[in-house]
Amino acid sequence: MKALLLLAHGSRDPAWTAPFDRLRAKVLARQPGALAESAYLEHTDPTVAVAAARLAERGATEIEMIPLFLGPGGHVRSDLPRLAEEIRSAHPGLQVSVAAPIGEADTVLDAIAEYCLRPA
Amino acid sequence: MKALLLLAHGSRDPAWTAPFDRLRAKVLARQPGALAESAYLEHTDPTVAVAAARLAERGATEIEMIPLFLGPGGHVRSDLPRLAEEIRSAHPGLQVSVAAPIGEADTVLDAIAEYCLRPA
Repeated sequence: MKALLLLAHGSRDPAWTAPFDRLRAKVLARQPGALAESAYLEHTDPTVAVAAARLAERGATEIEMIPLFLGPGGHVRSDLPRLAEEIRSAHPGLQVSVAAPIGEADTVLDAIAEYCLRPA
Repeated sequence: MKALLLLAHGSRDPAWTAPFDRLRAKVLARQPGALAESAYLEHTDPTVAVAAARLAERGATEIEMIPLFLGPGGHVRSDLPRLAEEIRSAHPGLQVSVAAPIGEADTVLDAIAEYCLRPA
């Protein structure tokens, strides 16, 4: 079964995860029973290794990492491929891929553009 | 005239701005003639001060800063109010406000959730 690993930066502030928790809930609302876990690069738990282990335990045979980053910086270009490799080493047989970051999705940029013109 | 200051983190990588350039183009396509500038907190030009001065020169009487951040961390909670205050000091009479970050917008999270389920 294919699983989603929703990857964000992380922060020292515990309130920082709120939008990512909401995002995961929205994914699960759209696809009930989906295997989807959030994970964070810095400061915030769970780490990628912990979230990937959780998905593997729940029966994932394939993990797609979704970079919740707008800009394609060092985190996306260096950290994510390295983390994908670490998941493969820890879980041989598990297929791991890294999607394009959300900032490359026209639908996401369209929604942000609309928000910019009518912000809260 | 109201102007938009689209604020993102910035990166040492020059290619990093591509999604933010596309976002600004999308805003201008939706509202031709709009006053909208991108600005960055770190590494990437222009700074907030430079972008705000550019908007003021072009006739802005009001600037709304749009935080292009998903999580409400230190950048959103500390840096942005401070930068808003710096714009006010540099341009007395210019109204400056800070919108909620994009991670608080349901429409943005909905678009990201859809992308997570059908990533590129």
